[in-house]
Amino acid sequence: MASSAKNCIILVALFLFSISSSSAFPMGKKQRPKPCKELVLYFHDIIYNGNNAGNATSAIVAAPHGANLTILAPQFHFGNIAVFDDPITLDNNLHSKPVGRAQGLYIYDTKNTFTAWLGFSFSLNYTAYKGTINFIGADPILVKARDISVVGGTGDFFMHRGVATIVTDAFEGEVYFRLRVDIKFYECW
Amino acid sequence: MASSAKNCIILVALFLFSISSSSAFPMGKKQRPKPCKELVLYFHDIIYNGNNAGNATSAIVAAPHGANLTILAPQFHFGNIAVFDDPITLDNNLHSKPVGRAQGLYIYDTKNTFTAWLGFSFSLNYTAYKGTINFIGADPILVKARDISVVGGTGDFFMHRGVATIVTDAFEGEVYFRLRVDIKFYECW
Amino acid sequence: MASSAKNCIILVALFLFSISSSSAFPMGKKQRPKPCKELVLYFHDIIYNGNNAGNATSAIVAAPHGANLTILAPQFHFGNIAVFDDPITLDNNLHSKPVGRAQGLYIYDTKNTFTAWLGFSFSLNYTAYKGTINFIGADPILVKARDISVVGGTGDFFMHRGVATIVTDAFEGEVYFRLRVDIKFYECW
Repeated sequence: MASSAKNCIILVALFLFSISSSSAFPMGKKQRPKPCKELVLYFHDIIYNGNNAGNATSAIVAAPHGANLTILAPQFHFGNIAVFDDPITLDNNLHSKPVGRAQGLYIYDTKNTFTAWLGFSFSLNYTAYKGTINFIGADPILVKARDISVVGGTGDFFMHRGVATIVTDAFEGEVYFRLRVDIKFYECW
Repeated sequence: MASSAKNCIILVALFLFSISSSSAFPMGKKQRPKPCKELVLYFHDIIYNGNNAGNATSAIVAAPHGANLTILAPQFHFGNIAVFDDPITLDNNLHSKPVGRAQGLYIYDTKNTFTAWLGFSFSLNYTAYKGTINFIGADPILVKARDISVVGGTGDFFMHRGVATIVTDAFEGEVYFRLRVDIKFYECW
Repeated sequence: MASSAKNCIILVALFLFSISSSSAFPMGKKQRPKPCKELVLYFHDIIYNGNNAGNATSAIVAAPHGANLTILAPQFHFGNIAVFDDPITLDNNLHSKPVGRAQGLYIYDTKNTFTAWLGFSFSLNYTAYKGTINFIGADPILVKARDISVVGGTGDFFMHRGVATIVTDAFEGEVYFRLRVDIKFYECW
């Protein structure tokens, strides 16, 4: 290969690298600090659809005018509020022994795409940790990895704060989804 | 008593002490810091049941499929959302002069026991304090003392954070309950 | 003017000054710190009333017994929960290019005046900022300026905390309102 072609490839590579790095660190953002504690957990949501009372871990409890409580609302489920009590596991297997419960609500809050607002707690009770972690935040569901706030905690998470990164790890129709939550604490006490 | 018997008793005592202290301070947890401010308050909730519009301070506003808004849902009230505007008092008397209002929502979120998720604020307005305190957290109702997060505040509680311990101080059927809230702030500004 | 009259005026002035300053800074409260970041934004809410599906940005999704989902409830809307997806703008013009979305819920929570409880997020995506800001707090709607808590953030608002002052900037019947939000961050990371 001629030297000029090589140089060209290097330039293109550098250009692509600069694009990718500028999106990864927009506006010269400073490096994130190291977490003082980190936890990766999974939780599993099976929404009630009128026929799965035994298995369901969540239920639609509010809906906009015209919608009902056994089918998620049209228009990207805008206006639905679901209450959930989901098992938390250490791996991605719904049937693994739960280490706690994820409890609270999610709210579908856009009419032209899938987004949610989350307010919930993890109540953990296993060998490694006992205590609760409290979360709120916007969840743009279709984005691969999205961040919400860890606004407080109790027990082993006394006064903790941090950021949790949520990834949809599985999604089966409109009945089951599994979220992988990577919780990074930056204030640990 | 023989010396070996004495030693045995001491060993058993030490053993029992180590069990009790290990459950009180699991995993060698460090001592909690001293709060920079502490407040003990009571709030009183009278839920609307179709016949007490005059007295009621809260109302069921969402329920799962098949339930209604004047009776808490079967299955441990799973899926009910109640909105409340409860008087806050300095002592445990519903008829004491209120020092503020507890306002927000509670959500029953388990199908096989009584637990709730709380999102609410205290708006205080009396001689000692003027300002708001914002809470979220999991409330395992049947546990005697349970902790939720104080995630922020305004006025005299500007930027405060802490932990609040809730105790059910009275419970009359499914209409009235009174909570004692011991608010410990650890960040005071 | 005699010297004693002059002294009297000075005393009265000092007295009035001490009253006004004691209400502005009750109980010798220390001066607020300077924010490390500040943002002033507007958001616009058009509530669904049965006839404005195209324009509406929010919907009533829960209501107390006897009320419905196309008209805000009697008794100061007590018990209504609205889910919203409101455009955020840099100025007070509904038709300005949005810089993000305000998403979450508001809950009317008093039977004898207008107050709300807010749980929502700003998702910002424009030249200056990309990231989310998470809010909760009590909103005594009829008070000119009221403070809620900024409990966390992500992206450019990673781990931020602060206080947001809300002012109702416009209010048209029960269909449109516009809020001016002055967000002051005191923890910036």
